[in-house]
Amino acid sequence: MFDCIVIGGGPAGMAASVYLARQKMKFALFAGTLGGQVIWSSDVENYLGIHNITGVKLVEAFNRHLEDYKKAMELHEGENVLKVVKTAGGFSLETDRGAYPTKTVLVATGADHRKLGVPGEDQFNMKGISYCANCDAPLFADKIVHVVGGGNSAMDAALFLAKYAKEVHVISINKELMGDEVMKRNCLKGANIKMHFSTKTTGFTGGALLEAIGLVGPDGKEVSAPTEGVFIEIGLKPQSELIDFLAKDKAGQIIVDSHNKTNVDGVWAAGDVTNVDYKQIAVAVGEGSKASLDIIRYLQSTQT
Amino acid sequence: MFDCIVIGGGPAGMAASVYLARQKMKFALFAGTLGGQVIWSSDVENYLGIHNITGVKLVEAFNRHLEDYKKAMELHEGENVLKVVKTAGGFSLETDRGAYPTKTVLVATGADHRKLGVPGEDQFNMKGISYCANCDAPLFADKIVHVVGGGNSAMDAALFLAKYAKEVHVISINKELMGDEVMKRNCLKGANIKMHFSTKTTGFTGGALLEAIGLVGPDGKEVSAPTEGVFIEIGLKPQSELIDFLAKDKAGQIIVDSHNKTNVDGVWAAGDVTNVDYKQIAVAVGEGSKASLDIIRYLQSTQT
Repeated sequence: MFDCIVIGGGPAGMAASVYLARQKMKFALFAGTLGGQVIWSSDVENYLGIHNITGVKLVEAFNRHLEDYKKAMELHEGENVLKVVKTAGGFSLETDRGAYPTKTVLVATGADHRKLGVPGEDQFNMKGISYCANCDAPLFADKIVHVVGGGNSAMDAALFLAKYAKEVHVISINKELMGDEVMKRNCLKGANIKMHFSTKTTGFTGGALLEAIGLVGPDGKEVSAPTEGVFIEIGLKPQSELIDFLAKDKAGQIIVDSHNKTNVDGVWAAGDVTNVDYKQIAVAVGEGSKASLDIIRYLQSTQT
Repeated sequence: MFDCIVIGGGPAGMAASVYLARQKMKFALFAGTLGGQVIWSSDVENYLGIHNITGVKLVEAFNRHLEDYKKAMELHEGENVLKVVKTAGGFSLETDRGAYPTKTVLVATGADHRKLGVPGEDQFNMKGISYCANCDAPLFADKIVHVVGGGNSAMDAALFLAKYAKEVHVISINKELMGDEVMKRNCLKGANIKMHFSTKTTGFTGGALLEAIGLVGPDGKEVSAPTEGVFIEIGLKPQSELIDFLAKDKAGQIIVDSHNKTNVDGVWAAGDVTNVDYKQIAVAVGEGSKASLDIIRYLQSTQT
């Protein structure tokens, strides 16, 4: 039986693994790919101490760090994780290759950015299309950008982008903005923010980089609007289905307290899969570190 | 009036400053010394992505990161911060040089490790004496070490050290261990853990490195016991006195929720000054990042 099983190999799961390995816990890390979504970041500028690094290089640095601890852990890479179930002695992780009993579980499975599912979206990902305004806005100084979405995260992105970009066009399929009233007002009165309601995004075109966004407005006509950057902010899909006995918010995010405990004794969660709103590498590393230390303390105070 | 004042220049305050600067907030950072306690760490091995670095070098890396943003912030280094008071429009930070009005406050003032106050304690700091078992235990493989203290953090340290060290001697002035029952049992039955109750630590001696710990046991005689490492685990003193209107736990730590909000609207706290138990660089960076993003969202949804 494992002391702990960590599910997810992004920054939260990797940071937790460093602590668990250093404390000589008997644990396993189940990861689709080590590094998680970080690998898709073009530039990471806000992980304190490592300024200006590509996602790929940062994952390499994370991997090098973990390398020294790999003999202290069981690493299951690419194994298909199906479900976590409760057992008499703790929990069992079921995968397509077997079942693994464990005393504690850390869910660090992350979240996927919802995609529009229109032509060109994948092609121009990181070539003009971004899913993280917090990360990439400063790259678009004095440029024309579009934000697709009309909720709080789209408004957040628009207000942030407005500080850098020349023009920010917000594209929403709805008739009005949805969410926080003050952000709505600020968006609507932003000198360089222009709203496009009842407008559908139909695709993206360009050469080596993104050049235009396809839009169908209220008049039903399709236009191709020139753009230098598009931020798609239509929500996140937390990867929380594999564990059905935890309290989650209405978006499906696992609810955690300030020590990353879930509502179920023996289960912690950290990173983008949780209700902690800020989907950032530094935050995920902090949460994963914290969760693992809480797990270690729990094990030391329950095991005799 | 500032959008935000960050008090404290350790990892939490520095990480927050990166986010606040990138979001072009009007803010000030008040720091005794940039880097905070990190500078006293001999080796940092658990900040994901930067393996095996001295505290001094890590602070240099943090500083280089912040350097790019310094023109976007007001940095008050070495200014003596006295008090935070509530005002009609928000808060005011009072220092020995003036009063600074602000809409929000992030308290990231950290905590000091309580010291024994005995001869040699400062002299052998980082030369055999450590205040962080989580950080330094692996350096003491197969060595004879002492833990001074008898509460949960001392037991935590002893159990962790027992996995590496040859002998772990726990020195407590009390007649028994205080705290978690299971940790007590595990300490008492640890094959390489030896308890020394009713024992006072009187000082430290050595040459270039620590060589012995002075002890007075129940028999009243002073002995000099050979040791290669001493972990002082007698508690933390959170630097929370400058703000008297926040909810704190009985140790004086500021109570925060999973988004680092305090009980007072407009005030956040992050890092070692909070009730988050794990005083780690990675945790402080995560908490500071998270707090600043929550502050930014708060400002965007309250300012019109």
